[in-house]
Amino acid sequence: MRIGIVAPSCRLEESVAAQLSSVVGAAYGADAPELVIHPQCFLSAGHFAGPDSARADAFVELANDPDIDAIWLARGGYGACRMVDLALPRLTSVAGDKAYLGYSDAGFLLAGLYARGIGRVAHGPMPSDLKRAGGDIAVLRSLSWLLNPTKPEGAAKQAAFNLTVLSQLLGTPLQPDLTGHVLMIEDVGEYMYRLDRSLFHVTSNPGIRQVAGLMLGRCSDIPENDPDFVLTEEEVARHWCGHAGIAYLGRANIGHDADNQVVPFG
Amino acid sequence: MRIGIVAPSCRLEESVAAQLSSVVGAAYGADAPELVIHPQCFLSAGHFAGPDSARADAFVELANDPDIDAIWLARGGYGACRMVDLALPRLTSVAGDKAYLGYSDAGFLLAGLYARGIGRVAHGPMPSDLKRAGGDIAVLRSLSWLLNPTKPEGAAKQAAFNLTVLSQLLGTPLQPDLTGHVLMIEDVGEYMYRLDRSLFHVTSNPGIRQVAGLMLGRCSDIPENDPDFVLTEEEVARHWCGHAGIAYLGRANIGHDADNQVVPFG
Repeated sequence: MRIGIVAPSCRLEESVAAQLSSVVGAAYGADAPELVIHPQCFLSAGHFAGPDSARADAFVELANDPDIDAIWLARGGYGACRMVDLALPRLTSVAGDKAYLGYSDAGFLLAGLYARGIGRVAHGPMPSDLKRAGGDIAVLRSLSWLLNPTKPEGAAKQAAFNLTVLSQLLGTPLQPDLTGHVLMIEDVGEYMYRLDRSLFHVTSNPGIRQVAGLMLGRCSDIPENDPDFVLTEEEVARHWCGHAGIAYLGRANIGHDADNQVVPFG
Repeated sequence: MRIGIVAPSCRLEESVAAQLSSVVGAAYGADAPELVIHPQCFLSAGHFAGPDSARADAFVELANDPDIDAIWLARGGYGACRMVDLALPRLTSVAGDKAYLGYSDAGFLLAGLYARGIGRVAHGPMPSDLKRAGGDIAVLRSLSWLLNPTKPEGAAKQAAFNLTVLSQLLGTPLQPDLTGHVLMIEDVGEYMYRLDRSLFHVTSNPGIRQVAGLMLGRCSDIPENDPDFVLTEEEVARHWCGHAGIAYLGRANIGHDADNQVVPFG
């Protein structure tokens, strides 16, 4: 097995890449998959892991390579929305045979792939999660799925997104059809008023109103609201689900942390 | 003339209301319009100027009152998206004869009015702008339009929004048809990566791509990006307009400041 790693958003630190090889080697020994870390991961151009074109080219190169079995997005941050239109139209049928995994800002790319029906897509930890306490367990959880990208027989349709990212792709060609899906959302570092506003947005979209229900992942590092927002993220999620006629299905085990679970789409 | 003032988002300080009466009295003397400041403006419920229902009720009460000639939204902040669905369906034909003015978070309400073709709508300074240096000139600029809510003969169709607010109503029933409009956007307090992301979002929407062109207002109080974003807000606006095939028409004289011009919609 050969796992391709590219960075559609921000750059990957070299030390994290080295740590990844070490963790995977220790976990799998002689059976370890080969990690093909594209040199683009280490480029730097302002906020991004190289120019938009370089990030798109690296993704297309690995996605269209028949000797690569799956694509693991290196990390989030910001920037995938800048390369997705440059990349998706160039994918061949080879790209459709692969699995793709990431989360957070990588959701722009995963949404576009899923909207076009390309490959098998999952939300889950990325190599950069090695920087968290317990990150080795998190990345091995994702790698396990990439090596066997299935979902349980008969499981409900599902998808998972960062709330802000989902909000900011609504009404664009990247918005996937989530009819009948359990939609899981999570967020990090957003004020309560912004979480509330994004939940207004997402639950007001006619396409999103076709979901089977919404599950709220963790909303971490919420800055202090002035004045106090009073409502919690779960109260806000219940409010907007009630207003929209969307079933609120409770908490999801996803978030910007080491416990972040793998959620295969579909 | 009787101008109704309500607060769909955050509360108005009593001192600002008093200052408004004083400024208007000094400017218009015996010809001063009557300012009907709804007591709801001074309510407080967490982040908001009273509960969602109270903000909706006050707006509906004044909008449906045939003895009120125009509605001036008191201030922004956050919260109009929480009351707009509770208010718009209850408006009568009386509300259609009025002018409505505000900006920033009030854009959720203005968008919904414009999308439904209710009344004459304009972006412009609000009573709360009195807290700015030169704010008296700003609020009198808006009041002048409210007393005579027209636009120049033969002027191009136009609309103006806070960029983040416009982004967060895309793909909802609040999104107005802006085909053939000059679209002006401004923002405040957003990181460059967020301005870039919102511009991706707005310019990727098929409806927005029907505008006659985009003009960039002021983007003020941009926090420092780490790493440096390199690109300026105008470079980013040009980038996304070019990508979307939208004409970039230069800078607009709008923003979160005392120079903020009145932009009648349509």
